[in-house]
Amino acid sequence: MALKKGENLLEANETVLHQYYVTQGCLRTYFIDQSGKEHTLQFAINDWWISDYTAFFSKSQAIMNIECIQDASLYKISKKGMEELFLKIPQLETFFRKKMERAFASFQKRILSGLSQSAKERYLSFIKTYPNIEQSVKNYHIASYLGITTESLSRIRRDNAKK
Amino acid sequence: MALKKGENLLEANETVLHQYYVTQGCLRTYFIDQSGKEHTLQFAINDWWISDYTAFFSKSQAIMNIECIQDASLYKISKKGMEELFLKIPQLETFFRKKMERAFASFQKRILSGLSQSAKERYLSFIKTYPNIEQSVKNYHIASYLGITTESLSRIRRDNAKK
Repeated sequence: MALKKGENLLEANETVLHQYYVTQGCLRTYFIDQSGKEHTLQFAINDWWISDYTAFFSKSQAIMNIECIQDASLYKISKKGMEELFLKIPQLETFFRKKMERAFASFQKRILSGLSQSAKERYLSFIKTYPNIEQSVKNYHIASYLGITTESLSRIRRDNAKK
Repeated sequence: MALKKGENLLEANETVLHQYYVTQGCLRTYFIDQSGKEHTLQFAINDWWISDYTAFFSKSQAIMNIECIQDASLYKISKKGMEELFLKIPQLETFFRKKMERAFASFQKRILSGLSQSAKERYLSFIKTYPNIEQSVKNYHIASYLGITTESLSRIRRDNAKK
């Protein structure tokens, strides 16, 4: 399926029936808190999977939104479709379990980074995790991923460019 | 296996060969940053699994430490043992994939909570996630889980008790 920049793949409160594999483009998963502020959980570029996984796994309503931020091509697969495939092809279950393990490890890294790293260190981790993404995304996307203001992000970039 | 309060199950830089299932007691996984400060990623009480999962999955060295903070009983299983069991009993792979999905969802919640919640809200989430854990753990364990100082934790508790 194809998605245009600015289109939403998923909105909060929708039931989450699919997960998506990105072959091209860029999307982001974000959460809107009670005060209306956006917090970016994840970006997805080529070969990444994206969904509101908490909702997808528990068959509950989304708390996240997923927005296309650069024209994208995606494949989608439903939970039911996956379970059927796993019964037919057990190796696929192994594949998805391993993918899950890597995703879990990257979330562990992100939690630790939030607890132990300075904003500048988090920015450097970000550009390592998502190389070449900076030209595709808006500054406030990155700032809301790092948990800082866009002003702080500009300051960090300036400091970083000086070196 | 049994572990006494104060004993380490795992130390940073060790190779991680096992994951552990806690039947009794309490453990915590923590990271020591370059300045020597501790950051608690996770507690494990009855029926929780614990390991340095990033290292366990990728067969690399631990970056986390795991400490027993209340006398504990554990079962351990190696990665090799798991892979062998999965081949014999495919249902077990399904069980572990689902456990992984729940763990992933709880990490997603923790990342969002770090990005969007105040220290007080994070404290309230913590006591909901780990009911009755407060008497078993030290204040600095909880503070290092919430990413705040022990002074802030005391203030939040005082405010909370007043209501």
